[in-house]
Amino acid sequence: MKASAVARANIALVKYWGKRDEERILPANGSISLTLDGFTTLTTVETGPRAPRDELILDGKARGTDTREFRETVSRFIGLVRHEAGMLDPVKIVSRNDFPTGAGLASSASGYAALACALNEALALGLDARELSILARRGSGSATRSVFGGFVEWVRGERGDGSDSHAVPLAGPDHWPAFRMVVCLTDTQEKKVKSRAGMASSVATSPFWGGWLRCVEADLEAVRHGVASRDFSLVGATAEANALKMHAVMMTTSPSLLYWNPRTVQILQAVREWREGGLECYFTMDAGPQVKILCIEDVSPEIRTRLSRLPHPPDVVEASPGEGVALTEKHLF
Amino acid sequence: MKASAVARANIALVKYWGKRDEERILPANGSISLTLDGFTTLTTVETGPRAPRDELILDGKARGTDTREFRETVSRFIGLVRHEAGMLDPVKIVSRNDFPTGAGLASSASGYAALACALNEALALGLDARELSILARRGSGSATRSVFGGFVEWVRGERGDGSDSHAVPLAGPDHWPAFRMVVCLTDTQEKKVKSRAGMASSVATSPFWGGWLRCVEADLEAVRHGVASRDFSLVGATAEANALKMHAVMMTTSPSLLYWNPRTVQILQAVREWREGGLECYFTMDAGPQVKILCIEDVSPEIRTRLSRLPHPPDVVEASPGEGVALTEKHLF
Repeated sequence: MKASAVARANIALVKYWGKRDEERILPANGSISLTLDGFTTLTTVETGPRAPRDELILDGKARGTDTREFRETVSRFIGLVRHEAGMLDPVKIVSRNDFPTGAGLASSASGYAALACALNEALALGLDARELSILARRGSGSATRSVFGGFVEWVRGERGDGSDSHAVPLAGPDHWPAFRMVVCLTDTQEKKVKSRAGMASSVATSPFWGGWLRCVEADLEAVRHGVASRDFSLVGATAEANALKMHAVMMTTSPSLLYWNPRTVQILQAVREWREGGLECYFTMDAGPQVKILCIEDVSPEIRTRLSRLPHPPDVVEASPGEGVALTEKHLF
Repeated sequence: MKASAVARANIALVKYWGKRDEERILPANGSISLTLDGFTTLTTVETGPRAPRDELILDGKARGTDTREFRETVSRFIGLVRHEAGMLDPVKIVSRNDFPTGAGLASSASGYAALACALNEALALGLDARELSILARRGSGSATRSVFGGFVEWVRGERGDGSDSHAVPLAGPDHWPAFRMVVCLTDTQEKKVKSRAGMASSVATSPFWGGWLRCVEADLEAVRHGVASRDFSLVGATAEANALKMHAVMMTTSPSLLYWNPRTVQILQAVREWREGGLECYFTMDAGPQVKILCIEDVSPEIRTRLSRLPHPPDVVEASPGEGVALTEKHLF
């Protein structure tokens, strides 16, 4: 009746942007991510007749359960699980991120992965990891990848019911422990346009949408190969180019999605300059203004020093490959 | 034997990015621009046996005539004209811009338009305006548009020899005198990657190149219609979206062309915010970090005030529709 799970954010190296099925959250393209150590969501769920109604307490604040946003996201997800479990009881969810929520740091990925895992336990759904990743997907597409640790591929799948669209672990966190993401926080406000609305708009309006889709398979293949052989240059260069393609699609969406701020660009240009000067690093970005710098551990101290000397230094969190979702004994209430 | 001409920069509302013929400078797509009042190049040429060899003095500095850049640009252009005129004498060129050179402010447009016009006179080539725009095109594609004032279309043309790829005046500077470009200088260094090399690289490598080409005709039609009917919202919105499409192509070029700096993005985001707040303005950008804000004259004072209050205010030059190229009595030597 009560269970807690911990999950970590993941950052895609080959991005997910656009769905082939809005209702089932089926992606138009496959994606590959790294689950991070250190961007953690802890979620406790309790279900049973004791709880008067569905309830969500996120980062210590009760979220209005009568809002349209709640109905369309968390409430919808709980409804799905209720249906699956054949039960009617309300669910109380208490969730806490140890990093900013809704600011392009994949809080919905860790959030729904943790929620799916906790519900699986509390309701005794008996889902295995693959099924759990399918369930997490129904909450937020990228959550499907946070079910596994390390380097993870979310296979697009072909079936209309989504039963073959789930995450597959490519290489666990121990495969390449020296891989680093230096996450640069340039602005921690919640973004104005959420990923879900943004990507639907891109599919409908960007003239570059078709071009984006045609590129993805080659990028997936390059990153699969790069991860397997620990070829950092291949993974980094592919990830940077892939992120720019996604942002090019975003900014040519109508209305245009421009997630960058001055600090974002300051860091993008700095990364390029450092790389030209021989310090190997690459950037990636998601639907928000944060920049994630990819590097190998032996150069991360130098990168952090240089970041701190920029005219407008960002807050920095360094992450290495992290574990997948897991149940925990620690409860939030 | 000696003649001087003045020409003004033009800023495209529907951009030129990519050639169908590198040698003849034939564009892959048509474009529409506004010739600006106030971004002026004055060029004096002298030819005859007195001059010992080809010579270029740009902004007061002699440019090395034995550099690869000179051979591939100005020297090549002079060679073409010599061939046309059937003469062998060296040419001395003295040219001065009243704005930064090579920083994304269309200095090559005003430069080659002025040079073509002065050579036409000095060598008595007898070219009419249409032929002059074809000649200017051979120096720099966008120069073809600076031959005319106001709103100008460069028609793509179909012929292999380029004889139908020239500028056409859509509406002179008196048609819409209230139209303004508030040019924001965010960085006046010469850019690392010149437009010519950049666009060739985009044609060869950007996955969005095909998508870009397929959009252009609709943008041209919208801007033609918007100019004719002085529909500022239509012209502004189309120009902003078109510029973002071009920059999306640039940043997905390999190696990636990212011309923006932190100030660039500061202004892009400010323009969007001001517009959402009811102050109608739009932006456009070329192959450089400058931002050109489009507005109508009655709001330009407010825009300039707001620009001056940004955390990192740019230098600002306000321009209105300007005249085409013309001979002048004022000589630079």
